[in-house]
Amino acid sequence: MVMPHAQATAAANDQLMSQLGRVCERRGLPDLAQRLAALQAWVSDDLRALEGDMAAVERGPRAVQKAALHLLDLGGKHLRPMCVILASRVGTDFDDAARQLAVAVELVHTATLLHDDVVDVGDLRRGAPAARTIYGNAASVFAGDWLLVQALQRVRATRVPGALDRLLAIIDEMILAESLQLEQRGRLHADAGDYFRVVEGKTAALFRWAMWAGGRAAGLDEQACAALETYGLHLGVAFQVVDDYLDFAGSAAAIGKGPLADLREGKMTYPLLLALERDPDLEPIVAAHAGGDHEPPDHAIATIAASLERTGALADSRALALDRVDRGVTALAALPAGPAIDALVTVAEATAHREK
Amino acid sequence: MVMPHAQATAAANDQLMSQLGRVCERRGLPDLAQRLAALQAWVSDDLRALEGDMAAVERGPRAVQKAALHLLDLGGKHLRPMCVILASRVGTDFDDAARQLAVAVELVHTATLLHDDVVDVGDLRRGAPAARTIYGNAASVFAGDWLLVQALQRVRATRVPGALDRLLAIIDEMILAESLQLEQRGRLHADAGDYFRVVEGKTAALFRWAMWAGGRAAGLDEQACAALETYGLHLGVAFQVVDDYLDFAGSAAAIGKGPLADLREGKMTYPLLLALERDPDLEPIVAAHAGGDHEPPDHAIATIAASLERTGALADSRALALDRVDRGVTALAALPAGPAIDALVTVAEATAHREK
Repeated sequence: MVMPHAQATAAANDQLMSQLGRVCERRGLPDLAQRLAALQAWVSDDLRALEGDMAAVERGPRAVQKAALHLLDLGGKHLRPMCVILASRVGTDFDDAARQLAVAVELVHTATLLHDDVVDVGDLRRGAPAARTIYGNAASVFAGDWLLVQALQRVRATRVPGALDRLLAIIDEMILAESLQLEQRGRLHADAGDYFRVVEGKTAALFRWAMWAGGRAAGLDEQACAALETYGLHLGVAFQVVDDYLDFAGSAAAIGKGPLADLREGKMTYPLLLALERDPDLEPIVAAHAGGDHEPPDHAIATIAASLERTGALADSRALALDRVDRGVTALAALPAGPAIDALVTVAEATAHREK
Repeated sequence: MVMPHAQATAAANDQLMSQLGRVCERRGLPDLAQRLAALQAWVSDDLRALEGDMAAVERGPRAVQKAALHLLDLGGKHLRPMCVILASRVGTDFDDAARQLAVAVELVHTATLLHDDVVDVGDLRRGAPAARTIYGNAASVFAGDWLLVQALQRVRATRVPGALDRLLAIIDEMILAESLQLEQRGRLHADAGDYFRVVEGKTAALFRWAMWAGGRAAGLDEQACAALETYGLHLGVAFQVVDDYLDFAGSAAAIGKGPLADLREGKMTYPLLLALERDPDLEPIVAAHAGGDHEPPDHAIATIAASLERTGALADSRALALDRVDRGVTALAALPAGPAIDALVTVAEATAHREK
């Protein structure tokens, strides 16, 4: 059922690029579609090298290793490794050290997904059964721990100055943000400040590290790395807000989990936060389905969807993502122009327009 | 209800020492009791310094921090930090770096307890409600992650050569051993080889690191650190086998969890492994209560206890612990004699004779 890893990764990358391309054409963004095709060609050697290193992650006999590799082998978008690749290409090259950092960032991300699925009692991930449903919650907890250790060992081995210290600080930020999200679970009167604190810690922090570390590995100075990090921050927030948007607007088949999954897990999303502020009639309907075990009935989904449209919550969420993309791209102006910067601009725009 | 940390730690240490002392007197080991008292006086300044550093672990507002500090504040035996203290005293001194390593080893240990309690659905820990029953499973998973990061940051900051690399490798060993234990959960036909693989990875590995790191921080050479590590290995195995023994022989009040807790969690223990090999009538009784939600009825406990006595399983477990203590002490012969070595001998002997 599961493809060998290198093929799965190659397929996932091709899929991401061609899907984004089709989205762009449908939305009348032919220029972005062309730029994505050019980007794909430009980084194809780097992606192949990454795939080789991802396939070389230790495959052992233990259940924790199987649980970890189960999720890793499903591929995913690899947007965080792509950040490392492109940041390193702003500098000298996507060399051995940068490749290890790119693998590490995906391992950290995968570790958080394993723990998230245990915490959220998630059954599906990347369109397949969550590792915890196959190997159990216990193995999934330890599998997350194991991937974290694998990631830290790789970063350590690169000896890129500051990379390990910063990654530890970033993981600390991620955990505290997860905690804040847990504490707010099921609360309908969310504060936008808290929402962004969660997103910046839980999602954007690792994008920041990916950009910083890629640049640092490729010999860029602190100022250049700081500019890349700012791009990572805004890209990460944009990515998460689009993710939230897709919880309402995406199809289950495309996003790989059921409709309104975030709502059922009691997680506040940006469109819902806006709609609840603007539509007092929405609260009882949302309250009835937040944290529930079952998919909301069609009429409830329809009512929530209508409110999100009517209040402009969906449109404003998309607009916020586009604004964050603009701010990320603006930060890149501090860096010398070239194909890597062009590629980062393309990735940012494609992130705002993605449909899965 | 919970004492401020420094007092709790001081109380726990005093308690450990005086309890061990009473045990020794009761067992006709007055010399060991006297040596423990001398040891306590000799390390009292170091323990006070450790307590200060433990109390300085970040106390933040997040649920994960509260869950982590809840368990940390309950104190525990602090045997692993004691290993760092004594190993460092074999060398130059228990200096700032060694103190950070001593705190780190306790944080890693506490992180594993938090994850264990989630995995084992444990309700009690150190005689108090497990963190997961107060803050939830989710916060306990992330609390374990958070403590791990705090520990790694401390070790990193000491810049003791090799300490971080070795700790990462040790945590890797610990996780794979946890996985092996999970895979064997509830199996009654356990293999002694697998039992020791679990114990060496899950328990002894961190003792090994504590001894190695304490010696390294205090400037000892590789050969001396290797001898300390061998001591740590045997001490760790002895400690775990005594722990197993206490699952049957200890009182619930003393060990802080219910009777036959390991059995109910489906974990194989050394006395039970021996008794099952020697007494064919035992298997159906054990099978009926392994992995159960409730405390076994008194008659089942009595039957199991009788078999453990009759087959010599308890006596042989105590003998194995004593043999491991001997092997640990023998490894210390490679090091120059002195009060730190005497103290390590005392700790090893007291570990074999402990009753909680």
